Parts: sequence; C-alpha cells; structure tokens
Amino acid sequence: MPEFTSVDCAHMARALELAERGQFSAHPNPMVGCVIVNGDDIVGEGWHELAGAEHAEINALRAAGDRAASASVYVTLEPCAHHGKTPPCTEALIEAGVGRVIAAMQDPHDKVAGKGLKMLSDAGIVTELGLMGSAAEALNAGFISRMTRNRPFVRVKVAASIDGATAMANGESQWITGSAARADVQRLRARSGAIMTGIGTVLGDDPSLNVRGEDIDTRGLQPLRVVLDSRLRMPASARMLTLPGRTLLCCTAGQDDRELVEAGAEVSAFSADDERVDVAAVLEDLADREVNDVLVEAGPGLSGYLLANDLVDELVIYQAPHIMGSDTRRMFDTPSWTALAQRRDLEIRDVSQVGDDTRITATIRD
Amino acid sequence: MPEFTSVDCAHMARALELAERGQFSAHPNPMVGCVIVNGDDIVGEGWHELAGAEHAEINALRAAGDRAASASVYVTLEPCAHHGKTPPCTEALIEAGVGRVIAAMQDPHDKVAGKGLKMLSDAGIVTELGLMGSAAEALNAGFISRMTRNRPFVRVKVAASIDGATAMANGESQWITGSAARADVQRLRARSGAIMTGIGTVLGDDPSLNVRGEDIDTRGLQPLRVVLDSRLRMPASARMLTLPGRTLLCCTAGQDDRELVEAGAEVSAFSADDERVDVAAVLEDLADREVNDVLVEAGPGLSGYLLANDLVDELVIYQAPHIMGSDTRRMFDTPSWTALAQRRDLEIRDVSQVGDDTRITATIRD
Repeated sequence: MPEFTSVDCAHMARALELAERGQFSAHPNPMVGCVIVNGDDIVGEGWHELAGAEHAEINALRAAGDRAASASVYVTLEPCAHHGKTPPCTEALIEAGVGRVIAAMQDPHDKVAGKGLKMLSDAGIVTELGLMGSAAEALNAGFISRMTRNRPFVRVKVAASIDGATAMANGESQWITGSAARADVQRLRARSGAIMTGIGTVLGDDPSLNVRGEDIDTRGLQPLRVVLDSRLRMPASARMLTLPGRTLLCCTAGQDDRELVEAGAEVSAFSADDERVDVAAVLEDLADREVNDVLVEAGPGLSGYLLANDLVDELVIYQAPHIMGSDTRRMFDTPSWTALAQRRDLEIRDVSQVGDDTRITATIRD
Repeated sequence: MPEFTSVDCAHMARALELAERGQFSAHPNPMVGCVIVNGDDIVGEGWHELAGAEHAEINALRAAGDRAASASVYVTLEPCAHHGKTPPCTEALIEAGVGRVIAAMQDPHDKVAGKGLKMLSDAGIVTELGLMGSAAEALNAGFISRMTRNRPFVRVKVAASIDGATAMANGESQWITGSAARADVQRLRARSGAIMTGIGTVLGDDPSLNVRGEDIDTRGLQPLRVVLDSRLRMPASARMLTLPGRTLLCCTAGQDDRELVEAGAEVSAFSADDERVDVAAVLEDLADREVNDVLVEAGPGLSGYLLANDLVDELVIYQAPHIMGSDTRRMFDTPSWTALAQRRDLEIRDVSQVGDDTRITATIRD
C-alpha cells in the first residue's frame, strides 16, 4: 500500500469534486475527474461530461499543455487502455510525458482491471493506486454494480410521514414532503439511467417520471422510464408516453402490445415469478441497456417486493414531520414477514435536512 | 424589559444546570436552581432536591453565609412568598440582606405570580425578571401545565422502526430499539409523576412500568402507574401490582374492584367517553394528585386516541434503523382520520442519536 501525503489527498479530493460535475450527464459512463499537478501548481483539470465526449484525463492534459511533462496526474478511476468511442487515455498520458499517475480505484471490470496502470508502468511512469478509493467507489456505485454484477444499482426512494405512512388508504398523497424534498428527488432522477415504477402507481397517479428542474443540466438526457406491467394494463393515454424520453413496459409473455407500441412505448416480455414479471430479469436487461442506476419510485407493493427479495442496494427515505395515522399505506408491503427476525437492518449512511423534511440514506445490512 | 449581560446569562445558565439536578426527585415540586454572586465570586449554589426539603434559595443562602449580604441572586423561578412545607424564601432573602434578585420566570400560578418579587422589591431589593425565561419554562413544562391548565404535561413515548412499526401484527416487539434507548426511557420515567398505559398493553406484555437503572437516583420515588382499564380486566396477578410504588386503575362506573383492591391496586371510576374512560377526566384527576408529567407508554390504541383528541403535549419517538414491513402495528391508531388534511404537523424540538437509534422529540403544531 503506497503512502500518500495530505497534498495527495487534497488533489484527489479535488478530482472527485470534478468527477461529480458529470453526475447528471456522464452515464452510462462513470463519473471521472482528473487533476494534473506540476510542482506545487495545478496545471490542468478535467472531468468527463458526456458519453462520446473526451475523458477526464484528456480534458486535463489539454488544459495542462506542455506543463504536463513530468507532472503528477490524479485521476478518480484507472485510465482506460482500450479504444472505445475515444482513443485510450493511457496513450495520451504516455505521449504527454507525465511522471506519475495516482488512481483512486481500478477499472471495475475484471477483464481490464489493472491493464491501464500496467501499460503506464511499462512506459516508465510511476503508478499508485487506492488513494481515497472508497469515496471513488461510492461515487460510481452504479457503474461498478453494472460492471461487476451485471445489474444496476437499485435505489428505492420513499416519501413518508414520521409514522411511516406514504399515502392515505384512499391513495391521497399530494403532498407528504415539501418542495425542497421534491426538488431533491429531481436530482436523484437525473443521476439515474432509469426510473422504475409499478403499473399500480401509473394507474393511480399517472406520473410523468421525467427530470424537471431548471438547475439540473442533463445535457438532454432523460432516464428511461420502466413500468412493471405484467398484464400490460397501461393506458395508451398515459402522460409519460407523451413526454420526451423513452418508456419501457415490462410484461409477461403473450400480452397484446400493439396499441401501446403505437403510442410510443417499448414493450418487452419477461419470465414470470408467480404471475408477476421477474424483476431480477428486468434488472439484468437494464444492465444490458447500460443502465447504471435505477431509481425506484413505486408503491409499497413493488418497493416491498424488492426489499423482501434482496434487490435493494440503497434506500432514500424522505421523512416529513407529520403523523398521518393508521388509515394509511405503508412504505413496504411484505406479506411474507411475520416474525421480528425477518426485519431488515439498515446501515444509515447519511441523514440530512431537506427543507422541513429529513432525508435518510441507508443500505441494507447483510 | 431589563437588559442582562453575558455574565448574568452565565450565572443563570448555571442555575438552570443546578435546577436540573432535581429532575428525578423534585416533583411534584418544580425544579429550581439558585446561584448567589458577590462581586465576581460565586459564593453559594443550591437546588431543590426533594419535596419537603429546603428550597434552592435556602440551600444557596446557607452556602453563602455572610457573603450573601448585598449579593446578586440568580434563581430559575420566582422565590416563594408563602408558608408551605417550608418558610417563604422571600423572608430568608430579605433577612440575608441580598442586593438583587434575578428570576428567570414568574411563579406560574396566576394567584401568586409576581407576589414574591413584589415582596422583595418592597423590601428595597432590586428585582429583575425574564433572564433565560423560555429555558426555565421548558425545564418545568410539567409543573407549569399543572398550575395553569390543571392537567399534567402529557409526553407520549413510542419505539418504532424507520417504517413506523411498533410491533409485529402478532404483538412481538422485543426488542425494536437497542439497550441505550431503553435506558433513556428509564430517565423519561424517572422524570414523570405517572406512567400511563392501556389495559391492552398490560394483558399483552405484563409490563413493570417502574424506574430501573443504577445511574438514576429518584430518592425512592416511583411514578404512579396508571392503567386505563374501562371494564377492569386487569388480572390481580399483574406483575406491576407486586412492585414498589402505587398502581391506579381507571375504570368506568359499576365495575367490581374487590379482588384488585385486595391485590394492592387503587381503583377510581371515571365518566365514560363512548364506553371508554374519559382520558381528559383522568388527566384532571392526576393533576389533582399533583402529577406534573405523565409519560404514556401504550399501544397504538391509546396513543392514537390521545393524539386525535389533542391531549398530547410532546412526542418522544425512538426510531430504530430497521424496516419491519407491513404485517405490523402502527404508532397511532386514528380510525377517524381519512384525509391527508387531518394529519398532525410536528414541530421537531430535538433529534439525538441514542445508541443505534434516533430519538426525535417533537410537539404538535396547532
């Protein structure tokens, strides 16, 4: 394990900050940031903004120009060594004559992990790995999930009262949380390659499930809307079909999809799990479609199904300072849990105040 | 409004700190702290420990001795002017020849408010009122409630998962929160003159509802256990009847109480509200019994009834980092709430980490 100085840490922290600028637009590529330092001077900064556009390293090298020679390069992800939509970054770094490359983490893809650093090392460049690695991994949890598990990172968002209600029993739920929390959800959406919901939510609320918000620049990207609709009950008049961006309906085999395809939907049939679309199969399909992050905004049925089937990677709970009482819907329908031992333990990752509401971000403990 | 200096504030803050030492033992009296300052020196400190024992001012005067002459006296509550279990503090302050008395708040009892300060003022002592008044009021919310509303301060404690479940549907609830939260509840109990529950909880859990915990010195006080038991279904073998401290069963008229009285319970009949004991009447009775603070540790039925009937002054929610799912009991049964507009808005007063759990203290907004 190489030893890093506080100066190294500061440069990598800056590179992570730059990487995050791509949060709304870089996917399906990972967010990457790069800082080039010559002596005490930062001579170049770059980040990856958009799939097909230059990688972070290239942008930083361009800014550094001749001053990249012998410089130290801090990059949040191992530089690529292969020809993709753009030429390999390793070649550009070697050509620029940099002296040292510090990567926060390896390429998550097993088959290429380490190849980029090895190529640099073979060219006589000092390489170091692991500086602020866990922060870099957290930043690209979705990309890593897709690369290593062939499944997107599944983030379930819930808006609830402090007593755990998500709607009145009659479905009334506008609005439980405040405008700041709803604006925050727009940012969650913009970070996601897909937004998933169930047909019940579509039939009940006719949601848009698109990214709105003037302060969010997705460079025109809209997440794929995914509706789990086993028996294809989606009305062709659903609002989301009229909006920019694509809508994927996931049904079981043998459904009549003509009218919906006509209305602009994509329809895919999946294997069934107890007459419902097998969600694990849908997630695999979404990974094949290069979706890194799925945001689930659904009712207690789908959210509970995902939780009970260990398909949730992260919960984001917006908790409103209200008591809604008992004639209400729950966060998660879990009909098979009858004993306390079946509960899920959460690891709380973050608690933040968002307007009047509290946002709790948590993962599920094994 | 008199102007106070930061030195004044520091002394009153100390007096409030001293007052709080009586939190487990002073009731039904208010907590009171007193600091006597001569020049730059604190020459005496005192607090009220136990009903019948010396008041804070007397303890502080005793510590100050001759140095109380011309000194400034900071006291968290207006000094008493009447002969109660002990002689009036005003007399002692006048005799000691203090120069100035600063009280955080007036006596909350309408009929005596201001009399103590007037008596001091008439004796030529400078009196000032209101320094850190709201902190002093918060400290003795229970005493003030009893004096001004003839009703104790009602604090409802709930232990729940993050999705708002308090037990599995079958009643299993041991344990939702961790040991630190349960120890914290012991401190809530020790601050309370009474602990209230419903007969359902007694029949289901056979709770002790007493104060345990080696670090809590109540000077032998145990809160009154109050069970709302309209039809007197309490078994004579209930555990709480075997423990130190008193148990009050509140029933409707015409119940056979012989066996329970034999077993050591006190039984009182109250008017009925829809066949259930009228809880507002019980609260009035508890105020007559000099109970300042009632801690409600009940199931969703009683907690929901209190909430829906605007009888809750404070909620203390211990939230465990778990998801318990839908086959569970809620925090509050509120059968009459069917529209979102009926929810209660909370004013969050404090959020603290207690072990692995989060404690949320809130009041209800009007």
